[in-house]
Amino acid sequence: MPTLVVCSGGLDSVTLAHRVAADGDLAALVTFDYGQRHHKELAFARAAAERLDVPGEVVDLSGLGRHFAGSALTDDVAVPEGHYASDNMAVTVVPNRNPILFTIAFGMAAAQGWDRVAAAVHTGDHFVYADCRPEFVAAFAEMEARALAGLGEVAFHTPFVDWSKADIVTEGARLGVPFTATWSCYRGEGIHCGRCGTCVERREAFHLAGVADPTAYADPAYWERAVAERG
Amino acid sequence: MPTLVVCSGGLDSVTLAHRVAADGDLAALVTFDYGQRHHKELAFARAAAERLDVPGEVVDLSGLGRHFAGSALTDDVAVPEGHYASDNMAVTVVPNRNPILFTIAFGMAAAQGWDRVAAAVHTGDHFVYADCRPEFVAAFAEMEARALAGLGEVAFHTPFVDWSKADIVTEGARLGVPFTATWSCYRGEGIHCGRCGTCVERREAFHLAGVADPTAYADPAYWERAVAERG
Repeated sequence: MPTLVVCSGGLDSVTLAHRVAADGDLAALVTFDYGQRHHKELAFARAAAERLDVPGEVVDLSGLGRHFAGSALTDDVAVPEGHYASDNMAVTVVPNRNPILFTIAFGMAAAQGWDRVAAAVHTGDHFVYADCRPEFVAAFAEMEARALAGLGEVAFHTPFVDWSKADIVTEGARLGVPFTATWSCYRGEGIHCGRCGTCVERREAFHLAGVADPTAYADPAYWERAVAERG
Repeated sequence: MPTLVVCSGGLDSVTLAHRVAADGDLAALVTFDYGQRHHKELAFARAAAERLDVPGEVVDLSGLGRHFAGSALTDDVAVPEGHYASDNMAVTVVPNRNPILFTIAFGMAAAQGWDRVAAAVHTGDHFVYADCRPEFVAAFAEMEARALAGLGEVAFHTPFVDWSKADIVTEGARLGVPFTATWSCYRGEGIHCGRCGTCVERREAFHLAGVADPTAYADPAYWERAVAERG
C-alpha cells in the first residue's frame, strides 16, 4: 500500500523510511521547512529520498514562523543543553506542530491516492510533546477519517509509537540504515554538538541498544560526564 | 474569551467575525492565501479586520498548491456553473483543506494564549465538504485537546455548524454586516459573476432569508432563469 513518509532527516524518520521501503510500500518522503534552526536536517531528508529512489517533497512553511512566537526551534533563543527534561524541552515546542505537518501530509496523500501517511512518533517524545502520544495519534486518525470521508481513506501508520528511541536504533541496525546520514542536533553546525538534548538522547539510544554510535560529536565526552554526574 | 476567527472574506466568515466582535471576544482574524482562484476575497478579509479594528493575519500557504493536484480552486481548470451539487462541486475540493487551515489557526491561538478558534462551517457545505460536518468538528476539537494537552486549552467555536446559509444572512442583517464588503464568487473578477455555484448559493440564501441582496452580479438574471427551469 503506497505510503507517504513524513521525514525530517533525523534518525527516527529516516529509519522509518527505510522500514517502509523494505516492505515495498514507500511512495515518497515529505519534509517540512518551517524555519527550524536545525535546517541542516533537510539535506539529510533529501539524501534519504535519493538513496531510496523516491520523490522527496520539501514543503516550504518558512513563512509560518512569524505567526507564532516563543519557540527555540524557530526563534533567536538559546538552545538548552543536557538531557531531555520537561523544563528544558518546553522551550523547543512549536505549538501544534505535528497536527499542522500531518494534515498537510494527509492532504498530499489524498490528492495522490496514496493509502497511508507514516510518521516516526515514539515514546521518547511522549513526556514533553503531547502531539506524539498514542492518544493523539488515535484522535488524529479519527479526525482524518471524518475530514476525508468520501475522498478516499488515508490510514495513519505509526509503527514506532510504543517504541523507545533505542528500539528504533536496533531496527535501523537490522535494516542497515546509514546512521551517519541522519541528523539529530538542534544546533545544526558542522557536526553534532554532543551537548544539546537531541544529541544526548541520540547517544543514549545507541548505548541502550548496544549498537556502536558512528556519529562524530564536537564534544564526545559530554555525555559520559553527564552520566557520571547523574551516578 | 479572546477568539481568533478564521476569515476568508466571504459572507459566512465575515458575519462570524462581526458576531464574535459583538460579543466582545474578537482577538484577531486569520486569512489563508493557499493560491485559491478567488484570491480577491483576501482583500475583503483585510477590510473586515480594519473595520473591526483587530489584527488581520494573512498566512501565506501559496507554496502548498504545487504539492496537491486536481482542484479547480487552485489549478487551471474551468470553474463549474450552476447550483451546488455533488458532481459539480467535487472539482472545487482541496483535499484536507480545513484540517490544514484549522491546525495552523490552533497553533497561532496556542502561541498567543487565546482561548478559542472560530470557524464559519455551516450546513450548506455539509453535503460536499466532509470537513465542514458536525462529526468532523467534534473529532477535530478532540484531536486538538490531545495535541495541546499541557500547552493550554483552545476551544473550537462553530456557532453556525447547524445553520443554513440563509440563517447566516439573517444573523448578518441583525448585526448590520455590510454584505457588499463580503466576497463569494469563485471567479474573482470585477463583480460577482452570478453564475458560479457560490454566487447562486449566495443569491438563494438572501432569497430564503427574506433579506434584500445588495450584491452587484454580472448576470443578475441567471439565478431567476435557473429557478424557473427547475420549476
